[in-house]
Amino acid sequence: MAGQTNGTSHVGRSTPRLEAWAKLTGRAEYVHTLRLPGMLHGKVVRSTVAHGRIVRIDTTAARALTGVTRVLTAADVATVMANPHYGPAFHDQPVLAIEKVRHVGEPVALVLASDVHVAEEAARLVEVEYEELPAVFGEVEARTSTVAIVHDELKPAGFFPDLKHLQGGRNTNVALEFTLRRGDVETAFAAADHVFEHTFTMQQVLHLPFEPPVSVAEPGDRSVTIHTASQTPSFVRAEIARLLGWPENRVRVKVGHLGGSFGAKVYIKLEALVTAAALIVHRPVKISLTMEEQFYTVTKHAATLRIKSGVTRDGRITARACEVWWNGGAFAEIGPRVTQKSGFTAAGPYDIDHVWINSYQIYTNLPPAGALRGFGVSQLVWAYESHTDMIARRIGIDPLDFRRKNLLHEGRPQATGTLMRDAALSPVLERLAELMNWAQPFDRGSGTIRRGRGLAIGFKASIAPTTSVAMVTLHAGGSCTVACGTVDMGQGSDTAMAMIAAEVLGLPLVAIKVVHPDTDVTPYDMATLGSRSTYHMGNAVRRAAEDARDKVVAMAREVGLPDDSRIEDVFKKRYGMKAGTIVGMGQFIPTYAPTDHHTGQSPDVTPNWMIGATGAEIEVDTETGQVRVTRLVNVADAGTPLNPRAVETQIFGGALMQLGFTLFEEMQFDGGQVTNASLADYKIPGMLDVPATVVNETVEARERGGPFGAKGVGESGTFSVSPAVANALDDAVGVRLTSLPLTAEAVYRALRAQTR
Amino acid sequence: MAGQTNGTSHVGRSTPRLEAWAKLTGRAEYVHTLRLPGMLHGKVVRSTVAHGRIVRIDTTAARALTGVTRVLTAADVATVMANPHYGPAFHDQPVLAIEKVRHVGEPVALVLASDVHVAEEAARLVEVEYEELPAVFGEVEARTSTVAIVHDELKPAGFFPDLKHLQGGRNTNVALEFTLRRGDVETAFAAADHVFEHTFTMQQVLHLPFEPPVSVAEPGDRSVTIHTASQTPSFVRAEIARLLGWPENRVRVKVGHLGGSFGAKVYIKLEALVTAAALIVHRPVKISLTMEEQFYTVTKHAATLRIKSGVTRDGRITARACEVWWNGGAFAEIGPRVTQKSGFTAAGPYDIDHVWINSYQIYTNLPPAGALRGFGVSQLVWAYESHTDMIARRIGIDPLDFRRKNLLHEGRPQATGTLMRDAALSPVLERLAELMNWAQPFDRGSGTIRRGRGLAIGFKASIAPTTSVAMVTLHAGGSCTVACGTVDMGQGSDTAMAMIAAEVLGLPLVAIKVVHPDTDVTPYDMATLGSRSTYHMGNAVRRAAEDARDKVVAMAREVGLPDDSRIEDVFKKRYGMKAGTIVGMGQFIPTYAPTDHHTGQSPDVTPNWMIGATGAEIEVDTETGQVRVTRLVNVADAGTPLNPRAVETQIFGGALMQLGFTLFEEMQFDGGQVTNASLADYKIPGMLDVPATVVNETVEARERGGPFGAKGVGESGTFSVSPAVANALDDAVGVRLTSLPLTAEAVYRALRAQTR
Repeated sequence: MAGQTNGTSHVGRSTPRLEAWAKLTGRAEYVHTLRLPGMLHGKVVRSTVAHGRIVRIDTTAARALTGVTRVLTAADVATVMANPHYGPAFHDQPVLAIEKVRHVGEPVALVLASDVHVAEEAARLVEVEYEELPAVFGEVEARTSTVAIVHDELKPAGFFPDLKHLQGGRNTNVALEFTLRRGDVETAFAAADHVFEHTFTMQQVLHLPFEPPVSVAEPGDRSVTIHTASQTPSFVRAEIARLLGWPENRVRVKVGHLGGSFGAKVYIKLEALVTAAALIVHRPVKISLTMEEQFYTVTKHAATLRIKSGVTRDGRITARACEVWWNGGAFAEIGPRVTQKSGFTAAGPYDIDHVWINSYQIYTNLPPAGALRGFGVSQLVWAYESHTDMIARRIGIDPLDFRRKNLLHEGRPQATGTLMRDAALSPVLERLAELMNWAQPFDRGSGTIRRGRGLAIGFKASIAPTTSVAMVTLHAGGSCTVACGTVDMGQGSDTAMAMIAAEVLGLPLVAIKVVHPDTDVTPYDMATLGSRSTYHMGNAVRRAAEDARDKVVAMAREVGLPDDSRIEDVFKKRYGMKAGTIVGMGQFIPTYAPTDHHTGQSPDVTPNWMIGATGAEIEVDTETGQVRVTRLVNVADAGTPLNPRAVETQIFGGALMQLGFTLFEEMQFDGGQVTNASLADYKIPGMLDVPATVVNETVEARERGGPFGAKGVGESGTFSVSPAVANALDDAVGVRLTSLPLTAEAVYRALRAQTR
Repeated sequence: MAGQTNGTSHVGRSTPRLEAWAKLTGRAEYVHTLRLPGMLHGKVVRSTVAHGRIVRIDTTAARALTGVTRVLTAADVATVMANPHYGPAFHDQPVLAIEKVRHVGEPVALVLASDVHVAEEAARLVEVEYEELPAVFGEVEARTSTVAIVHDELKPAGFFPDLKHLQGGRNTNVALEFTLRRGDVETAFAAADHVFEHTFTMQQVLHLPFEPPVSVAEPGDRSVTIHTASQTPSFVRAEIARLLGWPENRVRVKVGHLGGSFGAKVYIKLEALVTAAALIVHRPVKISLTMEEQFYTVTKHAATLRIKSGVTRDGRITARACEVWWNGGAFAEIGPRVTQKSGFTAAGPYDIDHVWINSYQIYTNLPPAGALRGFGVSQLVWAYESHTDMIARRIGIDPLDFRRKNLLHEGRPQATGTLMRDAALSPVLERLAELMNWAQPFDRGSGTIRRGRGLAIGFKASIAPTTSVAMVTLHAGGSCTVACGTVDMGQGSDTAMAMIAAEVLGLPLVAIKVVHPDTDVTPYDMATLGSRSTYHMGNAVRRAAEDARDKVVAMAREVGLPDDSRIEDVFKKRYGMKAGTIVGMGQFIPTYAPTDHHTGQSPDVTPNWMIGATGAEIEVDTETGQVRVTRLVNVADAGTPLNPRAVETQIFGGALMQLGFTLFEEMQFDGGQVTNASLADYKIPGMLDVPATVVNETVEARERGGPFGAKGVGESGTFSVSPAVANALDDAVGVRLTSLPLTAEAVYRALRAQTR
């Protein structure tokens, strides 16, 4: 096989995305473009109240509309699913609302028609009468509310081993309470020279991929095929099989290209509803959400974060207590896991002996919140890195030096007890300082426009324990197919997996084809989320390719050819013609020891650490409060990047997304009703919002457990943007904001309050 | 795993076909029902002359028709395929006719339109001017013709190792001359007590699956996906990749259910044309042939068969010479292999010391002939079993006894030198005699209606050397997916493969899902043809399931569970949740020694022997010549049947199909033009043609190399029907017909000639 390398070395070279041409020329297949014979379009009738009892659903007028095939309610769903409640953490989300609704926008009925516009028109004709119930919206209020209880009873799903300790319960809005205890914070606070306590909030925002969620279910012979824009085909298969009471192999889940996702398409979304509808009417059914409907489907947690630190006179943090209230909305979604996983790192990347963390996943009557690019980490970093700067300023130490003094070093135990390994915290911080010219004087301006700079650093644990399996098939002509369940949603995973297989097999990249997920044929993968794919699936693909390579060599020896023979020559000699298949399999499961849910401690909460730091230089217009980021520097530890250019764009994309959450994005509510549910009213970053200078870099690093030293980087760019900008704002004009977003209005009001 | 059997034993139990419900309820997916966004329909413009030079193609009127997207000719095809000639044996078939046409109905141009009716209308508007060339239609005449040469030059494909000896050449219509020499026939004829020589002919007929050929090509990103009703997805992939000059992994071939095939959809048919069209217009293109177009696409060889035997006074056959002219039509198709493979057994299942066989594959100006259920064997058996009866009558020995005296016994070498192994010739013949009550007196009737009985026995070598690879995937929930390239075209292979996997894994049948061929994901299989799948793929699936089972046991031991643990429990213990995949791989390639193409000898021409015998009781209306089969008895050796009921229906279906070829089916030509190209004019057997009594049986047998003792049986029912009926006709009224079909008219004329 050595003879086949032809000097091809793929890993570490910037490589254009394999699907770029297909996307540019409009040939990429999306579920949105899929039409099946006899297919019906479904339009969802949604709740208009935040919490209420359904008194009556009148579908008469809708059914009477010409072209309407059927109008479904929960009673119809029950004919095909005995217990139609789904969810990865709790079985709390009904396929269509049963008796009660719990947030504005919750699906109550589904109209089916051959023409999507007829379905839309008919959906408006469905009349639903509600008896309103007391609603609760704020996460802190909801934790202790006894008036508004979102779910009468909590029913844990029991699917994930690390959510095994989820409690059932009644009369509570607390879905999960994560606790971590290390040392003795109270004694340490008492002994500290200074104690600081601040509270921060972050607003509810959402993913808004340009391709809204879409699913098609195609009923078969005692089977169903689901074409869906999903990050988690294996989970969809398992969950739909559970809902139907069928063996898993009767449910086939296929995923093509995704038009972005960022966590919007994890676990299960529309799949249960399209499946129920398709089985009821015995025809394919498609549901494509509109941009507006995304606002009612899944969001990023609003959160309230209280953080308290004990610090010595010379700037060592000795103790930290964090209390986090996560606003999970009406359904738990994957929120409990967000609460738990982010809880591991809530105290920040600092070496602190005494840590106390309480983190609550709270039900409210808002649209549900799930995972969004960072799994809760950007909320935490927002709090702890604002807090860090506030302390540094108060005790008169340069914020960079204060961080240097407290940063976790390689080999030290993090708050959970897990050791820091291959975690380039110091190199990332130092490289950021260098790129920011931190040691140089900085011109803060004068007159109306003032300038400031700020920095921040965050880290994240990866998801564990999870499994990835890959299959690498060699064809007689010498080309290769990589089958894996990783979903390429724009992050370039197809290209990365192809590069890994090509590298191992010594083949040119054009000889590799990556098959998109199809649960009938691609092996199991836990999910594409949490930046896990490069590390987990990358290792599985590497092993599968090595297995295939070993088999070619064995076959070459069997037929008397040298080890370095070309694949096609080995096949030809073995089979006498262009025939045969070699299949290599690879599996990867990092070691993992379950977390003790009393102490939150474990020696192995994560197989690796992701690190992202950001520096911002800003201009503030003191007359309007307008903040303009002029220079944004993002530095990450991605191990040794497989595809450097793709890594840079991931970091950049993450940072820009977070910049929108930092400066202006915010879901606005009135009695639980989103009042800005459109891209006209809810602004996301455009070309004019991109800072004039953006630097995206990785430090020289190596993740020893990763494929060719690599690890994931899809979220690292998001971690530190918000506090870096807030710290720069304080640096520029002495205004400290503790609530996101940092709108011109908020800055202006704070400037006015300052001068008063 | 033993604990999982739950007393489930599948093999040997009659099991309804897995897809029966889907087909009954109209939910089975066929390529005919596939519609893709932006898809165009193609209609083929066909040659109206049998041999001619294309002077001019005028597409003006067709292009002017509203709704026509494009009209393609060979010049367009050349823009995407450098050498657009395809074929498994010779690269002799142009995608669209180039300069010349060689049979009536040959594709000359292709009209593309969104509406299939517009395309059809426009196809009629394409004007083609030809300069006619001399044409040749008869196989015997064409062999030596110098006036009408169908191909100026022969270009062997070089794909199949056993067709490596195909010669190139010029000025000949002989595509292949197969010879077999054993002993010295001339000396033996001289020494024989009797020498008999007869010549037989068989007419051109065709497959007529109810689903005519259909293919859709979907252009992708430097790739193409072909959805096609094909028996040979792996070959289609290789051939299209060759035509395009692409690596194989850029061509994806997907096959769903087939509505019958019988050899009509082997190797490559419409796939090259739809692919070229789709790549030219950058849109999906579909071509669905009409029933009529099947008559111009592929047929069964008409043949002339001369057979000469030397026999001793006491009825031992000492020498046999066979000369066979196969009318291959205008393109070689797989005809050369039909000629060669059937050549192996042209002398019949008899133990004859001296054998001489010459078998010629001849080009003529008729529609091409390929493989049809039996790969030439039913033509041969028609000849040698008519001949056998004629000899027996002439030397005054009962036809059954004459066969008994000469039959090949287990362990004896067949004409090729290959030993008879697990070949139940005697048991089949004896069981047939028993079911026919051969030893009992038979009432031949009197008056107008006369009665007669006849029998015949035939055998066939399987295809070799060929490879099958299968993959058995176990899911965490304990269900299983079988991925294999075998095409279920109605023969029940999905069910057979599921039974084999279920048997090995101890799972209920409902837990098994069989994935249909998709070259991106299902492993290599040579093809679904020649009754090879049960034996070849059955073994591969068995090995793959055993591999998966071994891996479950190994995993069970690894996590400390007993060997007989349930699959789902092992997964759960290993992965901590419903996760992971176990993939078992299996490959099967029978041993094979290539045939010496000078002597036709080889110790291994086949991995096994298929045997089919038929007895017929008939009534002849002497006033009209009408032959009515009143009792048809079919006995086969299928080894130990996996699914006895499915085996019976295969035997029955084959026999009934051959009964149509025996009694009435015949393509009629006028100057190369088919004059009965419709089901109105070309009659196939209907319910009223089914004999009142049909018995279908297998004998107790075991194919030691087969999965659970089984071997294929898809063709065995066809072998012996024609001579059995002709022998019964002779028995009833003393009329010996040597040309098929045995129409009322032919019988009537022979009766009249007899009485004259």
